[in-house]
Amino acid sequence: MNNHQDTICAISTAQGGAIGVIRVSGSEAIAITSKIFVPLNNIPLEERKAYTLIFGKIMGDNNEMIDEVLVSLFRAPHSYTGEDAVEISCHGSTYILQQIMQRLIHEGCRMAKPGEYTQRAFLNGKMDLSQAEAVADLIASSSAATHRLAMNQMRGGFSKELSALRDKLLHLTSLMELELDFSDHEELEFADRSELQSIADEIEHLISKLTDSFSIGNAIKNGIPVAIIGETNAGKSTLLNALLNEEKAIVSDIHGTTRDVIEDTINIQGITFRFIDTAGIRETSDTIESIGIKRTFEKLEQANIVLWMIDGKDNKNICTLKEELLPLCKGKQLIILFNKTDLLNEQQRAALTSSLSDIDAPQLFISAKSGKGLSSLENKLVETAHIPEISQNDIIVTNVRHYEALTLALSAIHRVQEGLTYNLSGDFISQDLRECIHHLSDIAGEVTTDSVLENIFKHFCIGK
Amino acid sequence: MNNHQDTICAISTAQGGAIGVIRVSGSEAIAITSKIFVPLNNIPLEERKAYTLIFGKIMGDNNEMIDEVLVSLFRAPHSYTGEDAVEISCHGSTYILQQIMQRLIHEGCRMAKPGEYTQRAFLNGKMDLSQAEAVADLIASSSAATHRLAMNQMRGGFSKELSALRDKLLHLTSLMELELDFSDHEELEFADRSELQSIADEIEHLISKLTDSFSIGNAIKNGIPVAIIGETNAGKSTLLNALLNEEKAIVSDIHGTTRDVIEDTINIQGITFRFIDTAGIRETSDTIESIGIKRTFEKLEQANIVLWMIDGKDNKNICTLKEELLPLCKGKQLIILFNKTDLLNEQQRAALTSSLSDIDAPQLFISAKSGKGLSSLENKLVETAHIPEISQNDIIVTNVRHYEALTLALSAIHRVQEGLTYNLSGDFISQDLRECIHHLSDIAGEVTTDSVLENIFKHFCIGK
Repeated sequence: MNNHQDTICAISTAQGGAIGVIRVSGSEAIAITSKIFVPLNNIPLEERKAYTLIFGKIMGDNNEMIDEVLVSLFRAPHSYTGEDAVEISCHGSTYILQQIMQRLIHEGCRMAKPGEYTQRAFLNGKMDLSQAEAVADLIASSSAATHRLAMNQMRGGFSKELSALRDKLLHLTSLMELELDFSDHEELEFADRSELQSIADEIEHLISKLTDSFSIGNAIKNGIPVAIIGETNAGKSTLLNALLNEEKAIVSDIHGTTRDVIEDTINIQGITFRFIDTAGIRETSDTIESIGIKRTFEKLEQANIVLWMIDGKDNKNICTLKEELLPLCKGKQLIILFNKTDLLNEQQRAALTSSLSDIDAPQLFISAKSGKGLSSLENKLVETAHIPEISQNDIIVTNVRHYEALTLALSAIHRVQEGLTYNLSGDFISQDLRECIHHLSDIAGEVTTDSVLENIFKHFCIGK
Repeated sequence: MNNHQDTICAISTAQGGAIGVIRVSGSEAIAITSKIFVPLNNIPLEERKAYTLIFGKIMGDNNEMIDEVLVSLFRAPHSYTGEDAVEISCHGSTYILQQIMQRLIHEGCRMAKPGEYTQRAFLNGKMDLSQAEAVADLIASSSAATHRLAMNQMRGGFSKELSALRDKLLHLTSLMELELDFSDHEELEFADRSELQSIADEIEHLISKLTDSFSIGNAIKNGIPVAIIGETNAGKSTLLNALLNEEKAIVSDIHGTTRDVIEDTINIQGITFRFIDTAGIRETSDTIESIGIKRTFEKLEQANIVLWMIDGKDNKNICTLKEELLPLCKGKQLIILFNKTDLLNEQQRAALTSSLSDIDAPQLFISAKSGKGLSSLENKLVETAHIPEISQNDIIVTNVRHYEALTLALSAIHRVQEGLTYNLSGDFISQDLRECIHHLSDIAGEVTTDSVLENIFKHFCIGK
């Protein structure tokens, strides 16, 4: 466990810039910095006002100057962490930054762990847990949409929604418990069960809306998973390369994000598509092995959109594949791509179309090699992705932890609704209500355990 | 040419940190930032005191918040550039940094060129040119020695030395010119030529000391150039890899430096050695081609230290090579390495030693493969490098531009000394004195042309 009494320090800027910034936070932040810092006009840091900048020198232990720096001074609780804090802005030399860090540690600081500043901000009540989590998302945001969602969450949009929900749940709980406490006093008027039911329905509707938003939130944050399925010679990698070459988007900066595996992501019209690597289906001695197909198709599960790529000039296995593929595409958006079709005549195209006319899926004729039909494919992908325009006020769940908590809250409220319908005892219903409140409080970090916290903040970058 | 009236902006931190910093400088810096920044307590930036930090929001043109930021306020002339300036400290997301830059540019800023902040600091008299150049060296410094030299230069140690030199030269010039103006008035007492000579000698001594220091300064800054010479089978690359594997030093961060080609540099006991890539000498039909040797030996010119590597078990060409190599090693430190000698007996070693006993160079027996003798080699390299301990007060020239100007100043003062010795006319001597002063002023940037300035600052990183 971290000791939250320590004064911590970390380099908060990336290596290689003109400016480097070191953050110091904790009750000793100003005193420790004072030991290595000589202000230009000799007025000690301790006597300076908060929110001021002080120019001076950081001295090494050999009394040689390490650097001329600007120190920013913050006093508790008016700092990011809520503690006394100092930011040292120096020349962006790795050597200088390391020397200053060594001096700070020598004088009593401890090196901060990843996300420890934000963790302290949370522990000191500067933000709730969902806001703290949004800080990492904000730093990792690489598109207008991800930025908007993270910004709204960091500013507490989601927290407000949750808080309103909890108020409604507490209201419902108090009505339930009033009924329990005074059920003997027949002279008292209670909310009848149908009134309680309508409040529960409203809550269920709000939680559902949030859990439903996760599919959009997740698609925006992590990209929409797309699988390209096809035989080895169908032209899968040619298509992927062609799409990648068209990419004009900024490549996402993965530093500080929690993404472990980098897949090919392509930004088309502002929407991120994440292409899942599937092996090509291989033909063995002129027949397609069912085992081979199954192995290939296992990855399909992760995809929202399936591109079935068919060699327009060599498609003798089309029926075998169709039988295997279709059951696996249930609930997914299937798009059929006839590749290598730039030289086909109308009649040949019509033959291909009719061969799969029994499937309810759009068919596109493309040439991955020449690039013909690619823009139609891109439009079709965007249309299929079905991502609505997001504004900074939309509440959209992007975090798996939140989604899981909401799902548990949803099933608890479902049990409440059932309880009311079947006129169960108020005791049972109260229990489910409290569980629902618990899961919502978990998102804000009000009932979260240390190990959960540690797991959340370890994915942050150092210095934040 | 740059327009120094523009208000400029740039991202001053490297991509990928927790914090990003954007610098804005120029007469409109505060007004432009004000247009996109909403301070928390609504007191406009214009009314804030210098050297304060203001928390608030940067707004996008769609009235959505881009980020919550801290703004640092500086007012002319008390800023790095000497102009009004603002630093915006935001979350380190590339997307956010780019959005803020776009807003600043839209409101009237221009993107800063590399080194433009430091260039303005120089143009506004905050530092002289040699100090400005030291800023880039400081950022690129990766060892205690390079840091010390850059820090001393940035703080004006070198500038003071130059200024003292120029004072002496001006004194000498005024004495010379007094003699010229009043040479008819025989009643006046002038400094006699021997007194002038002794002043000139003192100046010559000081300039010589500076030009001489460049070999050390250059070795510290760029590493001591070492060439490993030998036949293709002598084990050159095995040795280089063995030395590289022993390297425990921090790999130098090359961002922002002017180094174009990265060679193998190895830090041994705090001293950087730069290994020059030389092709191995190949044998053609059992004889060594003289042309081949010459081509290989061309690179020797750049080296201070030459390691001649000889296969201890196959050295039939040793005499041919010796004849070719020795004339090229004049003025260089030669070290003879007998490789693959771990299995040789005393007698065999003695035979090798005596075969080159006529050369005045240390001989080492090593095995690059097993690592035997490598630490002796490292010690020998450090001993041969002959780098004195540097303190932060030593004036050591590290910059080629300064070295060239000093060399020109030195030859001018040599002409002055000659003129005094041969009793030449004061007119001639004054001319050389003025030339000497000119070259020294060039280092401080007092007589430097725009194109020279541009060339200096273009090697800086953006945002400095």
